[in-house]
Amino acid sequence: MLITTLYVIAITAEGMTGALAAGKHKMDLFGVMFIALVTAIGGGSIRDILLEHYPLTWVAHPQYIVLICVAALLTTKVPRVVARSENVFLTLDAVGLVVFSILGAQVAIDKGYGFIIAVSAAVITGVFGGILRDILCMRIPLVFQKEIYAGIAIIAGAIYYALLEYIKLDIMLATLITLAIGVSARLLAIFYKLSLPVFTYSEEEDKDTNKPL
Amino acid sequence: MLITTLYVIAITAEGMTGALAAGKHKMDLFGVMFIALVTAIGGGSIRDILLEHYPLTWVAHPQYIVLICVAALLTTKVPRVVARSENVFLTLDAVGLVVFSILGAQVAIDKGYGFIIAVSAAVITGVFGGILRDILCMRIPLVFQKEIYAGIAIIAGAIYYALLEYIKLDIMLATLITLAIGVSARLLAIFYKLSLPVFTYSEEEDKDTNKPL
Amino acid sequence: MLITTLYVIAITAEGMTGALAAGKHKMDLFGVMFIALVTAIGGGSIRDILLEHYPLTWVAHPQYIVLICVAALLTTKVPRVVARSENVFLTLDAVGLVVFSILGAQVAIDKGYGFIIAVSAAVITGVFGGILRDILCMRIPLVFQKEIYAGIAIIAGAIYYALLEYIKLDIMLATLITLAIGVSARLLAIFYKLSLPVFTYSEEEDKDTNKPL
Repeated sequence: MLITTLYVIAITAEGMTGALAAGKHKMDLFGVMFIALVTAIGGGSIRDILLEHYPLTWVAHPQYIVLICVAALLTTKVPRVVARSENVFLTLDAVGLVVFSILGAQVAIDKGYGFIIAVSAAVITGVFGGILRDILCMRIPLVFQKEIYAGIAIIAGAIYYALLEYIKLDIMLATLITLAIGVSARLLAIFYKLSLPVFTYSEEEDKDTNKPL
Repeated sequence: MLITTLYVIAITAEGMTGALAAGKHKMDLFGVMFIALVTAIGGGSIRDILLEHYPLTWVAHPQYIVLICVAALLTTKVPRVVARSENVFLTLDAVGLVVFSILGAQVAIDKGYGFIIAVSAAVITGVFGGILRDILCMRIPLVFQKEIYAGIAIIAGAIYYALLEYIKLDIMLATLITLAIGVSARLLAIFYKLSLPVFTYSEEEDKDTNKPL
Repeated sequence: MLITTLYVIAITAEGMTGALAAGKHKMDLFGVMFIALVTAIGGGSIRDILLEHYPLTWVAHPQYIVLICVAALLTTKVPRVVARSENVFLTLDAVGLVVFSILGAQVAIDKGYGFIIAVSAAVITGVFGGILRDILCMRIPLVFQKEIYAGIAIIAGAIYYALLEYIKLDIMLATLITLAIGVSARLLAIFYKLSLPVFTYSEEEDKDTNKPL
């Protein structure tokens, strides 16, 4: 099955970027594996808990835990190779983001929920792994500041839901179309450095601009 | 129903304060909506997960998600209006805190749990949204340091449980009495800057005081 | 029952160390109790949520909440006594870590899961309380950097599972053997300052070493 293959590639790639983030904080090998696991399967776990979708994927398929741990340990052996393959990982991460979004929307559909919850499930699956990784590494989550990262998850979830539920395409076709649009959009956003408007508000600035009045 | 109206007002107000907090960290519009959602419905979600109370409120009522996102986006258009309406928001936040506590205690009662779990559910519902907001914004959660904020949730949960389960009042009357006491107590605490004793312990201090011995 | 007694001692000791960590961040008494609770019962709660093992221990036994809160408040009265009893607490923490691991593995076994999930449940129960405590106190989780702390949970979970499921010992004997090996291993690791290899990766270093090429 296409989506399972892509999912396995995605969690491996996400796990390796998680391991690299852990390496920047001098963690021991357990920390490296833990951060890799949280990055790769944290988003799906939170989605499943919020939607009461049990058992969680990694509980039903413990081999994914082993796979991610091995990928994380390999990353510690060749960190520079991983870090220098930035373009490979950006592409794999784009594929992963869209695959996660599709799987998230599908879980919501399987549970009988509508458009808003399907899109929410897509976003949670796509971005929460990275949010948890950043919290554990003590930094403001990148997804709140990166080139429309979460926006891609929203678009992918919305397109997939529309193709499946409104246009009644079959799952394979809906998956392929969503993948094509979502991955292209993500790579274009990176290439053209597109990003959402940023909302900045500081109290001091507020006070300053008031003073002259 | 009174409590539903107050709940909708409360999550809107909490979402707007969450959006303002996000604005202080230069987040993009997705980050702003995400922090607003976590602030407004994070506490109730964690309570429901801990007590196995499914489906979560926002999963059953996705319109709340839309409402909070719209309120968050409006906040980014008029941040100074929101920031200067401090007294309005402190009052709405006080109402929200007590409404969340009442709803939390009610969930525990509906699940058949006793006094301690009802009070715990009240506290979790009342304060966890703010804790998650602060973790995502990388700061020590304010509720651990603010004027008896969590204390109000404990008192509100305890009073509501006692009125309903011991004195056998009906839900409407128990809600009104708890609201009156809880909101007054919170506003008085703010006005008189009351706070719980603070526990400070530093290792250096410890060593210093030992030196002379 | 031996394991229940040890569990009660363990959550009390973990709660007291949590309270001490809160004291270093000038939290009010609610914050102190909250951090103590999260440290003591957070790991078990996350395990139960991930494995859909309801009701959570403290929901079924609310007296544990009271016990931990009392222990936390006592700690604020005599922080130096607690801080100076480092050896006592390191030993209790070692016992607690192994007891938590055994209980975690047992939950996974009760739910019908195999070796990998049993070991994962042991680790989650053993280390997640400390991870949550450190996140709430805004520091990189210690368990990622301390003397093979999580490693002991892995070993304890693996030994317990093997004794029970492969060698078919009874629960009492499996518990005693796991406790003896796990606690000894932990105390030896502290004594000899053993730790897992640390994975350090910094981008600047990478660039520096590239320059001469």
